[in-house]
Amino acid sequence: MLYRIESDSIGEKQVPKDAYYGVQTLRAYENFKITGRKIHPELIKALAQIKKAAAITNMEIELLNRKIGNAIVKACDEIIEGKLHDEFITDAIQGGAGTSMNMNANEVIANRAIEILGGEKGDYSIVHPNDHVNMGQSTNDVIPTGGKIATIRLLEKAIAELNNLDKALMKKSKEFDHVIKMGRTQLQDAVPIRLGQEFKAYADVIKRDIVRIKRNMDDLRYVSIGATAIGTGLNADEEYVKNITPNLCKVSGLDLVQCEDLVDGTQNLDTFAAVSGALKVCAIDLSKISNDLRLLSSGPRTGIGEINLPPKQNGSSIMPGKINPVIPEVVSQVAFNVIGNDMAITMAAEGGQLELNAFEPVLYYNLFESIETLANGVDTFIENCVNGITANEKHCKDLVENSVGIITALCPHVGYKASARIAKTAIKTGESVRELILKEGLLKDAEMDVIFDAYGMTKPGISGKELLKK
Amino acid sequence: MLYRIESDSIGEKQVPKDAYYGVQTLRAYENFKITGRKIHPELIKALAQIKKAAAITNMEIELLNRKIGNAIVKACDEIIEGKLHDEFITDAIQGGAGTSMNMNANEVIANRAIEILGGEKGDYSIVHPNDHVNMGQSTNDVIPTGGKIATIRLLEKAIAELNNLDKALMKKSKEFDHVIKMGRTQLQDAVPIRLGQEFKAYADVIKRDIVRIKRNMDDLRYVSIGATAIGTGLNADEEYVKNITPNLCKVSGLDLVQCEDLVDGTQNLDTFAAVSGALKVCAIDLSKISNDLRLLSSGPRTGIGEINLPPKQNGSSIMPGKINPVIPEVVSQVAFNVIGNDMAITMAAEGGQLELNAFEPVLYYNLFESIETLANGVDTFIENCVNGITANEKHCKDLVENSVGIITALCPHVGYKASARIAKTAIKTGESVRELILKEGLLKDAEMDVIFDAYGMTKPGISGKELLKK
Amino acid sequence: MLYRIESDSIGEKQVPKDAYYGVQTLRAYENFKITGRKIHPELIKALAQIKKAAAITNMEIELLNRKIGNAIVKACDEIIEGKLHDEFITDAIQGGAGTSMNMNANEVIANRAIEILGGEKGDYSIVHPNDHVNMGQSTNDVIPTGGKIATIRLLEKAIAELNNLDKALMKKSKEFDHVIKMGRTQLQDAVPIRLGQEFKAYADVIKRDIVRIKRNMDDLRYVSIGATAIGTGLNADEEYVKNITPNLCKVSGLDLVQCEDLVDGTQNLDTFAAVSGALKVCAIDLSKISNDLRLLSSGPRTGIGEINLPPKQNGSSIMPGKINPVIPEVVSQVAFNVIGNDMAITMAAEGGQLELNAFEPVLYYNLFESIETLANGVDTFIENCVNGITANEKHCKDLVENSVGIITALCPHVGYKASARIAKTAIKTGESVRELILKEGLLKDAEMDVIFDAYGMTKPGISGKELLKK
Amino acid sequence: MLYRIESDSIGEKQVPKDAYYGVQTLRAYENFKITGRKIHPELIKALAQIKKAAAITNMEIELLNRKIGNAIVKACDEIIEGKLHDEFITDAIQGGAGTSMNMNANEVIANRAIEILGGEKGDYSIVHPNDHVNMGQSTNDVIPTGGKIATIRLLEKAIAELNNLDKALMKKSKEFDHVIKMGRTQLQDAVPIRLGQEFKAYADVIKRDIVRIKRNMDDLRYVSIGATAIGTGLNADEEYVKNITPNLCKVSGLDLVQCEDLVDGTQNLDTFAAVSGALKVCAIDLSKISNDLRLLSSGPRTGIGEINLPPKQNGSSIMPGKINPVIPEVVSQVAFNVIGNDMAITMAAEGGQLELNAFEPVLYYNLFESIETLANGVDTFIENCVNGITANEKHCKDLVENSVGIITALCPHVGYKASARIAKTAIKTGESVRELILKEGLLKDAEMDVIFDAYGMTKPGISGKELLKK
Repeated sequence: MLYRIESDSIGEKQVPKDAYYGVQTLRAYENFKITGRKIHPELIKALAQIKKAAAITNMEIELLNRKIGNAIVKACDEIIEGKLHDEFITDAIQGGAGTSMNMNANEVIANRAIEILGGEKGDYSIVHPNDHVNMGQSTNDVIPTGGKIATIRLLEKAIAELNNLDKALMKKSKEFDHVIKMGRTQLQDAVPIRLGQEFKAYADVIKRDIVRIKRNMDDLRYVSIGATAIGTGLNADEEYVKNITPNLCKVSGLDLVQCEDLVDGTQNLDTFAAVSGALKVCAIDLSKISNDLRLLSSGPRTGIGEINLPPKQNGSSIMPGKINPVIPEVVSQVAFNVIGNDMAITMAAEGGQLELNAFEPVLYYNLFESIETLANGVDTFIENCVNGITANEKHCKDLVENSVGIITALCPHVGYKASARIAKTAIKTGESVRELILKEGLLKDAEMDVIFDAYGMTKPGISGKELLKK
Repeated sequence: MLYRIESDSIGEKQVPKDAYYGVQTLRAYENFKITGRKIHPELIKALAQIKKAAAITNMEIELLNRKIGNAIVKACDEIIEGKLHDEFITDAIQGGAGTSMNMNANEVIANRAIEILGGEKGDYSIVHPNDHVNMGQSTNDVIPTGGKIATIRLLEKAIAELNNLDKALMKKSKEFDHVIKMGRTQLQDAVPIRLGQEFKAYADVIKRDIVRIKRNMDDLRYVSIGATAIGTGLNADEEYVKNITPNLCKVSGLDLVQCEDLVDGTQNLDTFAAVSGALKVCAIDLSKISNDLRLLSSGPRTGIGEINLPPKQNGSSIMPGKINPVIPEVVSQVAFNVIGNDMAITMAAEGGQLELNAFEPVLYYNLFESIETLANGVDTFIENCVNGITANEKHCKDLVENSVGIITALCPHVGYKASARIAKTAIKTGESVRELILKEGLLKDAEMDVIFDAYGMTKPGISGKELLKK
Repeated sequence: MLYRIESDSIGEKQVPKDAYYGVQTLRAYENFKITGRKIHPELIKALAQIKKAAAITNMEIELLNRKIGNAIVKACDEIIEGKLHDEFITDAIQGGAGTSMNMNANEVIANRAIEILGGEKGDYSIVHPNDHVNMGQSTNDVIPTGGKIATIRLLEKAIAELNNLDKALMKKSKEFDHVIKMGRTQLQDAVPIRLGQEFKAYADVIKRDIVRIKRNMDDLRYVSIGATAIGTGLNADEEYVKNITPNLCKVSGLDLVQCEDLVDGTQNLDTFAAVSGALKVCAIDLSKISNDLRLLSSGPRTGIGEINLPPKQNGSSIMPGKINPVIPEVVSQVAFNVIGNDMAITMAAEGGQLELNAFEPVLYYNLFESIETLANGVDTFIENCVNGITANEKHCKDLVENSVGIITALCPHVGYKASARIAKTAIKTGESVRELILKEGLLKDAEMDVIFDAYGMTKPGISGKELLKK
Repeated sequence: MLYRIESDSIGEKQVPKDAYYGVQTLRAYENFKITGRKIHPELIKALAQIKKAAAITNMEIELLNRKIGNAIVKACDEIIEGKLHDEFITDAIQGGAGTSMNMNANEVIANRAIEILGGEKGDYSIVHPNDHVNMGQSTNDVIPTGGKIATIRLLEKAIAELNNLDKALMKKSKEFDHVIKMGRTQLQDAVPIRLGQEFKAYADVIKRDIVRIKRNMDDLRYVSIGATAIGTGLNADEEYVKNITPNLCKVSGLDLVQCEDLVDGTQNLDTFAAVSGALKVCAIDLSKISNDLRLLSSGPRTGIGEINLPPKQNGSSIMPGKINPVIPEVVSQVAFNVIGNDMAITMAAEGGQLELNAFEPVLYYNLFESIETLANGVDTFIENCVNGITANEKHCKDLVENSVGIITALCPHVGYKASARIAKTAIKTGESVRELILKEGLLKDAEMDVIFDAYGMTKPGISGKELLKK
């Protein structure tokens, strides 16, 4: 391979001749061989948008030469379009608060701009990574701001998927509104409910998750670009500090606002931790729904078997005909992963010291994965599971009629104690609740028809209240 | 001891004659000897408020005899005032979704009401724990609703403490506004900052925590009372379902709203998990601030030593004169505990199945502890630490003047590369930055006076910008 | 109340005249009002044992006057017997690496020794908390050593309970060895298993937990007493350093060994974190077993209903006759709490800095709770659940015979593909597997009797292998 | 693209003509687009080794035709050598307990074996994925066994790195044995220590980590191959069950033992969770060491500055000359990630139900990442940090001489109270401890020379004990 020589404070170093990245990127690449995963494409794009907005702002206030500035803008545009991403070679988990990511962006953009201006890669007298591309910036305002932009972009996709899930569940809720089945608490027979009510409850908790995620996402709109090294704004021209955020809004198409307190904005990662916390609650809810679907579809013969999940693949390499609830299972696994990631994020956010939190890289690594896998999990959940669920209506009905739990409706009529006695006998002897009540002469058959109206029992009210008034 | 005989579905059992609790409470007491800690007083009060509101509602719709209802109300009032709390003997961590807590309340209230009506404890023909005290209710709507009320009450105190902390930090921020010191990123010398700016950043992140906790607290105002066993409202009269929440608002003095979807409201604990998540982020922030204070006050002679924490106790049993940062240390420990509790809460919330989450007791156990210890930790943090912090102004100034980090201000004037070279030499040889610049003839002394103006460096702008324009 | 005046580096302070604790304890009490929970009795005893061993050692090497030393020993003996525990008033979560606990012990012992020697409490010229009681010691070797002793003591109880659980499960394993039932994977019907095999698997994982907990407990036997402030042993006489651990073994009755590297032993809490990790794995296993028991006993009519848990209390305040799996539920809650505590312990252990980890108090708070609640949870699990479990043998058998899962045994005879086709038809049409095979003429009735031998299917081997050979 | 048609229980489906994977793999690929990461190469190899050992065993007992068996063995060998890995296309996080991974292996091996035997891919009449490649196996014994083999392989590399770290730290311990410096507890000046003692403590905790990881790794040697679907061994010939593990030992070169209780071995993931727990403790220790190195190298001018980390890259995009502790920072980030992963693993392990834990894929995803990133982090830690650390010997000495902490050595001579008074004055006035003692006439200069011997203070003993005897 051919090389060029570059140098930094550490000394000289060979860089592949064709590389757009430079010496600092290469050192970081060698220092951090940790995960084998690179910087997330959305973060690469966000960095390019910030560099572009900075160049525009610096040209506007005449600190940056137009020729150089325009070349930087052009280079940034290419990256925003998805080009040159393979030049971002630093590991996703890296020391140094993201300096290596930032310098990776600065070097790639500088070298591409140099090329645009007819120079040779590495000739930083034409466009300098620090003096020109990074002008008015610091890793410590670029990386938090870039992370917020990337997170918002990824969240928008996740929220769209959650909205789809809400709709899919609501659709099933209507489809199953008439299916009467046993409700269960603590896995023990409770009182009747409609399958549609169960799906509506699933939809409604997801709706709350969407609201929670959104409002935490909105807190990310407060960005610290202009803060430079520690939030004091040193080396950023006052006009630049004023204009960079509006320009970044234009470039990124996002509603962003400059943090009122840039010192705070530089050192605290609480808004990211809060987003992760909201995702974690959503993961909890998704896992609970997934578990429920696995319970309700258990069997087919020796479980609850009230619903069927669409068969998506052979369930077993040894047991023929077995179909497993693979989609809910993968959703629960995504949930576990999101919950684990939240712990890593918690520790990263807690680890800030004085003017900076240097642990953004591992925070982003975990947060981006949480958002994307959650979105992906929800996507397959809708397409390959929820949409295809069917109800075993007759089985549901049989279970209700065979249950003891309906005795609850009897309490307002004969009291808790007598009801409990009948329930206990029914469970012991296998006799039906109705038979036992008749035997004891507590109520007549016609009265029980009123009280044990299954559909009625799924709505608020004392079943057979009119009988009470007598 | 003298006993009375009570019975339930399990059979007969001796209950201490004087006890207000009954057979179900006693069985629970024996089944769950786990933590040795009892039900939280705020939860006891909340349960009594619910029982009172239910009795009022049931009297209004004429399902409950006025004499019985009024006795129940009176018994509840006593509990709300703080009486009979030692009759709540079930362990804070208990199986059964809180049925034991609820029955503990039902039995105590029933027996006290019986007494009020002149009967003998245990004579449930006068007032029945299930038929009268629990009328229209189920553990599954009472316990989530009670938990929400108790959580709101505890959060109000915690928020008040956080508001005090914000004020204390803002006060220090003003007091220290003129103290110029080195900023540090990654524990390495960065650029100057004012101590007041640091304290303002602490205050500002706490402000965000307060907002986050409050908005999650507000989600708890949606309560499920009226849902009965599984959210369908079976056995609760329609009028009761309509009126119970408004009555509970009156009794509790809180703004509460009935959940739109009571099935959802019965089975999902997401709103509690979200509150814990917000507390966890607050814990992260408190721990970060505490760590900073420990760093800044490290020494006194061999550390950073920029500030002094008020001495509150001897620091060591062996090292005389040693004073330790014991208050920030306890705050970090509270934070760790809150973070651990959040994990228990996460698992509890995830463990819901079908129509119910049976793990509320352990969730409450952890959540109440998180809120209270956080409030207590913040209280001692303000009183015994923040309020008494003093600055070592001269030492702060000396460190700035002795630092290499101020070289950052040089970049716009001579470029990153030349600045880096000088910095490297300064660190190596121990010479001052100014000496080296003079030696190289890069700038004149008068120019450096302008560029290296320490106060100016703590505000946005290019230091010595006017020199650039030349 | 009457007071005496004591003083420390902070200044003078009133101490209740009758108190055995002194000024430093009182300041700590006022500084740390966090949890309301005091120091664990086992830790109090361990501290007294250390102080006793130190006094004996110091007397042996003639650094401590015999009269004073013997009074200290006598005071310690009283505390070891359980006296004076209410004089230990500092909060369990406290700043300062346990200095307050240590000084609490030093002061109580000093004042009691003063009393024994006929002096007045507070007259430290007779016996001094630091110079005499704490002689040769530091908080930084006393508290880690005390924590290890207390943890070992608590673990011994927990291990005894786990051994009992193993036995109880093995007993059930034998009792249920003949009960053939369906095995389920992913909640879907799999192939037959015996209920006894299931209980044996539960016992066997608990056996591994015991081994894991024990070997981590044994690592706690390496104690750092003699390390003094930072592990260098400054101010501890060389003979003292040599003899203190053997003396502590005698006093405590435990096999303890002095850490080879006392600097390491002072600053690292890894052995505690590892114990918590082993408890966490045990919690995982207990929760899994508990969940299984809840699944297997679900119903009674609309669930799996293969086993019955002993009814221990009414299950519902509204649903008469309902019995819930309250004991497994409390075990899972204990597990969640242990898992949460492990996270707090992880953060505490990670937070050590340089020569010390100051976060032992919160670590102990969580670790002691984990051990005790786990032991308590296991105790009620054995007594109130496992021992009373019964099998619904006929129902288990019916489910096997009705299942499709037995078709797995067919694969070696007709191949996976044909088996899968039959299974699919059976599930769809509700026909039995045997009917379909006969209809297709794949096997004869007699052959199927051999292949579908349920008991045979629960053991390794190809069912009906002799038919293959033909 | 050209396709062939394959079918399974779900129906027919086009598979790319050249693909070695088949219909079941393809469905899984489509169902689980979650992380974008594929099955770990070590797991792919382990699966091939299991399939090879199974084929050998089945040939030995004459259940598998030699021609087919040998082709399977050959195909497996190719995969073990690293070929065909890009045919393993299922996502690392997948539903179904790893059935998709197992079928991916079965299909690739079958199609490659078919090819070897001269057939066309997809013609499973020649070699069948289930009947031949999977003969005697089930996903439920293959995947846990494969996971254990892969984990052991990865752990061996990680342990080798930890051993290297131990050596590197021990080397530094010797190099720095003579460097006397201040010890610090709670970031406050304590008493002198040698830098070599600090590095030895780091080495010693790593030694314990190695032991802990190894003994948990050894528990993984108990494998469940032969258990088939649920541990009962149905469909695995008795001879196969006896011979498969010895054969697998030969094929894999690992010491493996068949679990005594295969039912237990199928459903419990405790041994994996325990490995993760040991890694978590190691992460805690690595993070603590990293934090210490960051503290000790803080500055260069306004921090502690006792040691220098080797400069590995420019520290800042804005602050010239700044060098950051990027390697310790990346190690702490790896630690946070490992701790987060442990939480995901905990939830996965807890989620097992009845005869199986279906959450192995997410467990492996997290566990493999933990092991590899920990190994990678340690590797860069050694090479790019520990090996190059240098001490600022003179600065260390100056800090000791300037400190107040040495006063601790005075206690045995003048008592705690007098020492505390002098310390307080020294801190307040800035006077040196020696000056004050002289001024008070407590000791003579020559006596202090003996007592305040810095090197002596770093070893056990009462400094100047001979003076006491006078």
